[in-house]
Amino acid sequence: MSADQETELRCSIARALEIVGDKWTLLIVREAAKGSSRFSEFHEALGIAKDVLGARLVALVNNGILLRQPYRDGSARSRHEYLLTAKGRDLLTVLGALGQWGEQYRPIEKPPYLSYVEAETGAPLTVQFVTHEGRQVEIDGVEVRLNPELSDALTGPG
Amino acid sequence: MSADQETELRCSIARALEIVGDKWTLLIVREAAKGSSRFSEFHEALGIAKDVLGARLVALVNNGILLRQPYRDGSARSRHEYLLTAKGRDLLTVLGALGQWGEQYRPIEKPPYLSYVEAETGAPLTVQFVTHEGRQVEIDGVEVRLNPELSDALTGPG
Repeated sequence: MSADQETELRCSIARALEIVGDKWTLLIVREAAKGSSRFSEFHEALGIAKDVLGARLVALVNNGILLRQPYRDGSARSRHEYLLTAKGRDLLTVLGALGQWGEQYRPIEKPPYLSYVEAETGAPLTVQFVTHEGRQVEIDGVEVRLNPELSDALTGPG
Repeated sequence: MSADQETELRCSIARALEIVGDKWTLLIVREAAKGSSRFSEFHEALGIAKDVLGARLVALVNNGILLRQPYRDGSARSRHEYLLTAKGRDLLTVLGALGQWGEQYRPIEKPPYLSYVEAETGAPLTVQFVTHEGRQVEIDGVEVRLNPELSDALTGPG
């Protein structure tokens, strides 16, 4: 394994993208967060080819993001539904961040498709950087730091 | 255009993913946020093929996420560097959310590659849902709401 690949594995963004770095995967998670649970619901809402959807659902189940479980719809035939696990629900922060970036930089005149509110109060929510004490920090005040251990290895010849 | 495609365009997550829904694109933004600005720096840090990197950089410039500007490195030959625009920097929230999900669900024993701190104080930062008043809300307390105007159109036959 090259130093470059090792660097990639070191990065948790890269590790996350190995699982969700695919447009359909995050849109399936979005649909599940919205309340879709059946193959046909995902298919209708996303307009995704059935074979692609099937493969993505298998991967999402294997990665512990969706739970596949049987349900009966009244007919004799048993079907399955797909439910977000806690691991899957924790991707809401990623979806919220992507959505607000899309709203800001690719606005359309219609109201947003989805919104995020506090369940208890209905208060609208946004995704922000915060300190451990809960103080919000604007993007301009955020500094991205490379782990000092890595700085030698990653200062390339430029 | 089908109803399904229209639904997709309605969704700001989908609109964002049209631009950044590609593993390399977000990793290039990560490198730029870390301080890389030259083609060779992106190439070294990511181990990405030069033609793929070139194409992604052109797209990022065309989409207003990176600014391409000339600089001189002492030699007669002029080169270019790529700097994050405000639009690009606003993707930090997406990267922060992806990174913390990766740390949580695909942990490794080594310290994180990147961290996010408040520039002024060095306070460590995380990405969270917050109310407009700045109150933090845990994922369990977040409700995803479909815009009521859309609920008819999107309640598929299931």
